[in-house]
Amino acid sequence: MIYDFTYQNPTRIHFGKTALEHLSEELKNFGSNILLVYGKNSIKATGLYDKIMGILNECGKKVTELAGINSNPRYSQVMAGAKLVRENNIDLILAVGGGSVVDCSKGIAAAAYYEGDAWKHYWEEQCPIENKIVPVASVLTMAGTASEMNTGSVITNEEKMLKLGRVFPFPELCPKFSILNPELTYTVPKIQMVSGIFDTFSHLMEQYFSGDDDCTSDYLLEAVMLSLINASRKALVNQHDYEARSNIMWCATMGLNKILALSKTQDWEVHMIEHQIGAYTDCPHGVGLAIVSPAYYRYIYRYGLPKFVRYAKNIWKVDGTGMSDEQIALEGINRLEAFIAELGIPQTLREVGTTEEMLPLIAKSTVKGGGYKKMDSEDVLAVLKECF
Amino acid sequence: MIYDFTYQNPTRIHFGKTALEHLSEELKNFGSNILLVYGKNSIKATGLYDKIMGILNECGKKVTELAGINSNPRYSQVMAGAKLVRENNIDLILAVGGGSVVDCSKGIAAAAYYEGDAWKHYWEEQCPIENKIVPVASVLTMAGTASEMNTGSVITNEEKMLKLGRVFPFPELCPKFSILNPELTYTVPKIQMVSGIFDTFSHLMEQYFSGDDDCTSDYLLEAVMLSLINASRKALVNQHDYEARSNIMWCATMGLNKILALSKTQDWEVHMIEHQIGAYTDCPHGVGLAIVSPAYYRYIYRYGLPKFVRYAKNIWKVDGTGMSDEQIALEGINRLEAFIAELGIPQTLREVGTTEEMLPLIAKSTVKGGGYKKMDSEDVLAVLKECF
Repeated sequence: MIYDFTYQNPTRIHFGKTALEHLSEELKNFGSNILLVYGKNSIKATGLYDKIMGILNECGKKVTELAGINSNPRYSQVMAGAKLVRENNIDLILAVGGGSVVDCSKGIAAAAYYEGDAWKHYWEEQCPIENKIVPVASVLTMAGTASEMNTGSVITNEEKMLKLGRVFPFPELCPKFSILNPELTYTVPKIQMVSGIFDTFSHLMEQYFSGDDDCTSDYLLEAVMLSLINASRKALVNQHDYEARSNIMWCATMGLNKILALSKTQDWEVHMIEHQIGAYTDCPHGVGLAIVSPAYYRYIYRYGLPKFVRYAKNIWKVDGTGMSDEQIALEGINRLEAFIAELGIPQTLREVGTTEEMLPLIAKSTVKGGGYKKMDSEDVLAVLKECF
Repeated sequence: MIYDFTYQNPTRIHFGKTALEHLSEELKNFGSNILLVYGKNSIKATGLYDKIMGILNECGKKVTELAGINSNPRYSQVMAGAKLVRENNIDLILAVGGGSVVDCSKGIAAAAYYEGDAWKHYWEEQCPIENKIVPVASVLTMAGTASEMNTGSVITNEEKMLKLGRVFPFPELCPKFSILNPELTYTVPKIQMVSGIFDTFSHLMEQYFSGDDDCTSDYLLEAVMLSLINASRKALVNQHDYEARSNIMWCATMGLNKILALSKTQDWEVHMIEHQIGAYTDCPHGVGLAIVSPAYYRYIYRYGLPKFVRYAKNIWKVDGTGMSDEQIALEGINRLEAFIAELGIPQTLREVGTTEEMLPLIAKSTVKGGGYKKMDSEDVLAVLKECF
């Protein structure tokens, strides 16, 4: 079934080895004041910073910089960016980096001209946008979040120990354009590559595990899972395999530009739990998701058994002969766990610095939702203990 | 591999039983002069015409009408619409009907302010657009072409006996919004329903049959094929099965909004051949495609054998044990043919009024291209004879 939806995603994607050549033509559509947002040192080390500054200068742009965005971007960084936008009358926020830099840039775009407590308004209370928004665009250096083609903005408030996600309205907060060159992802450390891969894989599962009817979106989500598994195995052998890395990058974008989620109610509880693990430990997002996923799905699969059987058969090719549906479903989750091991991702919360004392705090502060099963704090705590 | 591409598709889709409720909010974004384009009598018979006229009147719009668009829209109708646009200073062309009405409306949108021979400029010579374009939007009553979310405009020039397709530039000619209510497709006669289904299926195969590398787009195209086969079988049992019809409608849109074709070189020769069959016989588009497809694929499969083996296994679940690759590939095409029979579509050119004398004329006038094999007139004639 395709349930009622409205969808519009106007982001222009320039993909491939030549993608950066489109930057100067895109810049013509915006005024001269650019806020360049990026992370730590990597774009300087790879020479990308110099290339982009060269293009910006050639186009006669006046560049203000906001550097040092964390892999879990901070609300304090959003506020710093918002101040720069106002002070410099910024016409375009250009994010150069991974999803965290793009997420942060969207936060800045929404918060810059909001005259109150933006954290409370946009992330805690999820209010609609009524103030002026600054356009955002991106040059992506890491595949995973799909922030380059959606309106998501996950921000960590250090003071409040909260990591909250906001999906801003489409199409207003969609990046105006995004430049995706898979070669720019080669230099990402392996742990970040596999973290991004699993982030994408988790997005697909979060969208997939709801509903038990016949829905085109489920077939599409399965397709991207299959392609991603195949490409990931090749990238593990050779991180510079362009075929593999280009497929991974496009799987990531398709994985959460929301066109595959249409009409799905979706789950997202793994993300909610990981957000609070991230708030307490600052672990890479995809790593946290990978730790929680097998434990979570073993906790809830009974409530959506037919879908977990379909998943086991279609994604992990579980034969199923002579097995009960329960056994088939569990074998699917076992193979997911084996894939996580194959990616070389840590598989316990201990390994990313979670302490036993944190578990009830994480459980309590996690946003509760869920797909097949509605979760409460006790449920979340049980899942956390299982993967501790 | 994902090869370099640029993609932007800003069409806003309102999908579902309540989709038409969005029409009045959308109309606020346009001036008061509307050109309403529709087909023969069906939208009056179903009451849709009255509903839409009611909404247009409530919104204070001044409506000019262009009725009677053929299932193969004529260039003379494009010219008539273009004249109405200029005379009435039209602000929005609202297509209400199937893909032919939307295709015709896009032709009008491009041709209205072109001051020369638009047929030659846009369809024969495929020139870029430099004149003013009128915005187009649609209310869809038949699933198949995906014209509601792309820039395609296939027009028949009766004088010249040519049916030519034009893919106008994205995003300029993308409909501003499209309203898709699967219930509006219930009243389409069965032959039109299955023609639309096969049109979509053919779009997917035309995009799929090229390349032999590992490409995410191929997985996505397979996903829509699988979903469409499943939904079609349910719709054959009950044309009012909303689950089936809503999936078919969304498969059709996803099948050619081009997001699944990214980086694919594609084939499209079945469409080229069908266009000239259509020009000579006026047969429903999807029916012509179904007649040509098995013969065409049996003619070319050797040139793309690995992909035809993959297709047989993944789409038609050919087991393949003890079979050669050739046998597996051919069995896949056999099953495609069986699916066409299951849909109840005619399987020979004779049945749609093609005469033996027409065959060399069709072969000669067909636009030559192809995916795995480059086709010439003799090749096309051989295919035509095979399905005559």
